[in-house]
Amino acid sequence: MVKSVIGPEIERLIQLLAKLPGLGPRSARRAALHLLNKKEGLMAPLGAAIQEAVAKVGVCSECGNVDSINPCTLCSDPRRDGATMVVVETVADLWALERASATNATYHVLGGTLSPLDGIGPEQLNMAKLVERVAHGGVKELIIAVNATIEGQTTAHYIMEQVSDFPVSVSRLAHGVPVGGELDYLDEGTLSAAMRSRTRIE
Amino acid sequence: MVKSVIGPEIERLIQLLAKLPGLGPRSARRAALHLLNKKEGLMAPLGAAIQEAVAKVGVCSECGNVDSINPCTLCSDPRRDGATMVVVETVADLWALERASATNATYHVLGGTLSPLDGIGPEQLNMAKLVERVAHGGVKELIIAVNATIEGQTTAHYIMEQVSDFPVSVSRLAHGVPVGGELDYLDEGTLSAAMRSRTRIE
Repeated sequence: MVKSVIGPEIERLIQLLAKLPGLGPRSARRAALHLLNKKEGLMAPLGAAIQEAVAKVGVCSECGNVDSINPCTLCSDPRRDGATMVVVETVADLWALERASATNATYHVLGGTLSPLDGIGPEQLNMAKLVERVAHGGVKELIIAVNATIEGQTTAHYIMEQVSDFPVSVSRLAHGVPVGGELDYLDEGTLSAAMRSRTRIE
Repeated sequence: MVKSVIGPEIERLIQLLAKLPGLGPRSARRAALHLLNKKEGLMAPLGAAIQEAVAKVGVCSECGNVDSINPCTLCSDPRRDGATMVVVETVADLWALERASATNATYHVLGGTLSPLDGIGPEQLNMAKLVERVAHGGVKELIIAVNATIEGQTTAHYIMEQVSDFPVSVSRLAHGVPVGGELDYLDEGTLSAAMRSRTRIE
């Protein structure tokens, strides 16, 4: 990019937009022009929405969710089942489970997975608070809903060790064939797991 | 999305981000969470950059480029060749030509192409100003660098008619094989054009 023909304000806008996941340098330029073409209808509202979120949205001190109230909407909702707690890696996973209406449980967001090679140990995650919440009592079942990756499984094992002294049952999400999935496209690990965990048709 | 579990500030941020080209609902959610994870490093600066661009950046009254000064950097640069003017559809096209250092000419941004079916006539484009700039004299060559689409070619013909009374030579970008392109993947129209416009190897 020849710097001189693009004003510094636009250049900076493009550079920051390019840091969003899903946008590269080219799509960031397109996004910047799209914004400049819709200054009143989109650009000004987006700027205001970002500033408002910066000012108001924070991390829930209970579960690690993001919200404008603390404790968050989920933690302060008396209709949620406090005896069941779902442990997820990220807020995106929490949202995904909520979209699916998969559970009425409360959540705990770790903020990632253990990854010693990347320097991510328990201290870098929301782990101490998880143990504290379990130790505090009230949680009867801990559903570990981390991704089915090596790091996710390592993290799951670590959590099981940490809570082994407390009277809480620990479970994980079922492995199996995705609904709508075709067997021919599934890996051997998933197929074997689905076979082992087959359920009887009544 | 179950509205109740996502705060209104985050919901609004996601909705606005989803209007950016290249971002859908899912990637807008990812982008929103990415921003919330980097509030100080990315989110606040992006909000400020957007607000600053809203306040400072406008459309150049001469050529239709976007810049924080008016006339824009290109129009007010005495080193640019005012005798040659390149007509482009969008600012993105202007940037693309500048990245390629394809010309030292001045520009004129139409803001689109004629498309009667979409209700886009000459009045919806930056067309009157183009004719005015040509009529004003000084422009010796008008290079019509619109896209090689039906709408682009229609627009090119319209411009040629509009400036036919003025002493200006009109040209268009060459058709041919893209540099690095493979013949086998090119359409017949491009290949025929490349054959007709073949150049002698000295």
